[in-house]
Parts: sequence; C-alpha cells; structure tokens
Amino acid sequence: MGKKGILVVLSGPSGAGKGTVSRALQRDNPTLRLSVSATTRAPRKGEVEGLHYHFLEKEVFKELITNNQLLEWAEVYGNYYGTLRQFVQDSLVQGDDVMLEIDIQGALQVKEKFPEAVLIFIAPPSKSDLRSRLVSRGTDSRKEIEKRLSCVASEMELARRYDYIVINDDVTQALEKIQAIITAEKLRPRYHELFFEQFKK
Amino acid sequence: MGKKGILVVLSGPSGAGKGTVSRALQRDNPTLRLSVSATTRAPRKGEVEGLHYHFLEKEVFKELITNNQLLEWAEVYGNYYGTLRQFVQDSLVQGDDVMLEIDIQGALQVKEKFPEAVLIFIAPPSKSDLRSRLVSRGTDSRKEIEKRLSCVASEMELARRYDYIVINDDVTQALEKIQAIITAEKLRPRYHELFFEQFKK
Repeated sequence: MGKKGILVVLSGPSGAGKGTVSRALQRDNPTLRLSVSATTRAPRKGEVEGLHYHFLEKEVFKELITNNQLLEWAEVYGNYYGTLRQFVQDSLVQGDDVMLEIDIQGALQVKEKFPEAVLIFIAPPSKSDLRSRLVSRGTDSRKEIEKRLSCVASEMELARRYDYIVINDDVTQALEKIQAIITAEKLRPRYHELFFEQFKK
Repeated sequence: MGKKGILVVLSGPSGAGKGTVSRALQRDNPTLRLSVSATTRAPRKGEVEGLHYHFLEKEVFKELITNNQLLEWAEVYGNYYGTLRQFVQDSLVQGDDVMLEIDIQGALQVKEKFPEAVLIFIAPPSKSDLRSRLVSRGTDSRKEIEKRLSCVASEMELARRYDYIVINDDVTQALEKIQAIITAEKLRPRYHELFFEQFKK
C-alpha cells in the first residue's frame, strides 16, 4: 500500500462526540478525504449514494469480502457495513490523507491489515459526562442509554490498543490534539524515503 | 520505569542545528528537564559541574556501567560519556518530561533500554546545506568538515530507526513540529491508566 498519505481512524463510544470532531476536522483540512462506508442496508430518506454510504447488493458485498477488498467489515442486524480498500489505497498513493470514522472493532481490524493506520480513540471525559450527553442528545431511550453505558468499560479496555487517546472535554482542544497527532505522524521515517535518498549521492 | 513523564531524545548529524533547537525547547517548556551527561574527561575552562557535565572519576564511571546505571554510554578518545539512568527515571516518575541531547548511537542505545523513549532525528535539509552550515560555523577544519559530510549518508541510514524526522530548514517550524510530537506522545494509552480506571466503576 502507498506510503505518501496517512490513514487516520477515528472511533470511540457512542456519545463521545466523534461526529462533531470528524466534521470539524474535514472543515479544517480540505485535503483530508473521508472514506464513505459501504452497506447492504436500504437507503433511508434523504440519504445519498456515495455521500452517506455506498449502497450495495448483498451479493456484491460478499464478493468484496471474499476478494479481500474491505479493510474492515461487520454484520449488524442482518446488514453488512464495511470500508472499501480500493478508495483508501488509491487516495494514499496519490498523497491524500484519509479519515475513517468507524466503530471500535472496525478500527482494530484496520490496524491489523494496515499497521501504519493511526488509530485515535475519542473518549468522553467521564462516565457521568457520557450519560449527560446521551440524555441531552435525546435520540436514545433510557434503556438504550443504560445499555450503551454498560458497554463503555469494555470499550475503554479496547482503547488501550489504540495509538492515541483524545479526551473530548472541549472540542477545540480535542481538535488541536488531533492536528498535533497528524503533524507528528507525517514526520515518521517511512514518509521520508525520497529525503533519505539525496544523502546517498 | 515510571510512565508519567515522557523521555524525548534529540540527536542528528553535527551541524544540523540540534543545539539551537534544544535551547529553544527548554526556553519554551520550563517543565522539560535536560539531562546532564556524565563524563570522565577533565572540565574545560568555564565548564561547571552539574551544569555542563557531571565530571566523574573513571573508576566511578566503570562502576555505573557494571551496575547498569547508564541509559547509554560510549568511549571517545579514551574518555567516557554517558546518561545517568537514575536522574531520568526519577524525573519521569515525578511526572517531569526529560530531554536528552546525545549522539545517534547513544539515542539508539536508549531506545533499546527504554522503548517508550521518543527519538527525534534533527536532519539538515540537504547535504549542501549542511556543508554551508559547517563552513559558516567556523569551528572545524576543511578536512574535519569533509570527514563529517562523508559520515552523513550512514547517519541518515540510522535515522530510519528513529521515531520521527524533523528537517531543520527553519528553526520556528522545526520547533512547532517537535511541540506537536510532544503533544501527540502524551496522548498514548500508557499515560491514561488512571483515566481508564474510572470507567471500570
């Protein structure tokens, strides 16, 4: 896989604010390309092919799995979701940076297939803060909120396998930290092959 | 070894400007403690014990080697030079960040003993730029300069084993990059144990 762009993977517990962070990052980094996930579920009202998802037939999706064309995938309630390897690969080779906003298990799958991926875990400042956010968001039932909170302990265990933890107590500060991560990751020796070459002459 | 502070190791070819960068970093980061090297050579005029070096007897230095009390050491023209493990360890446990400004081989020794060390290679923008810097510095003979330049190719090969490469074509930009590295490295999961703990309750 190409070495010119970097692959940034954002994930974290539901309610930690990764959507807000992700949108702000795209706004501030016009060259950061967001990978659009593929899915076999039907489009919801207002969802646009290629913008919200790539909507695929189940047979097509299964073929992508067989041919190792997905960087990560999962089946959720009978529908498939995944990240297209080709888009990511082509973008990186062209020198563009790519961002994935995917779930925690998916992020760890990506890291296995592509160790240079930079995994950033967006974490809520505390469990009680997460509860407040989920309540004020108003999209989940009380039961659903308790279920999400009971998952957080095990999700935080998986966070230890990430490259970086960004605690989202303040969006501006969280963004500054992610920008610092991107700046630092571009300074890895693997992106300096051409630079090293000139010293051999 | 303690996990609270981070250990930043700066090195690079002679003339790449690591001294300037190191002094500016200390000025901008009052909590960044510079480790003072130990040596068996005699103090030069104006050199102060504990500020420029820890001046030690050869027997004492050899005992430190035997007792694994040095993070790195080397013998140069019959004199020993090294980094005291105790100072680094105590500072990190107290939560202070530590910076070492040492040679390339020394940095790689530190990485072996302490893999969490953050190795930053300060590189000149090009071979011709390095030549100009060494000439204008005026401290080395023509012969010495050619000798240094002939070493650069192999030094750049070792740079591949560093964590980060910072090309010093502009000191302000180089400093911004190093600050980004420090910010990013403090976001590693290993520094978040207490944070993770609270989600278990």
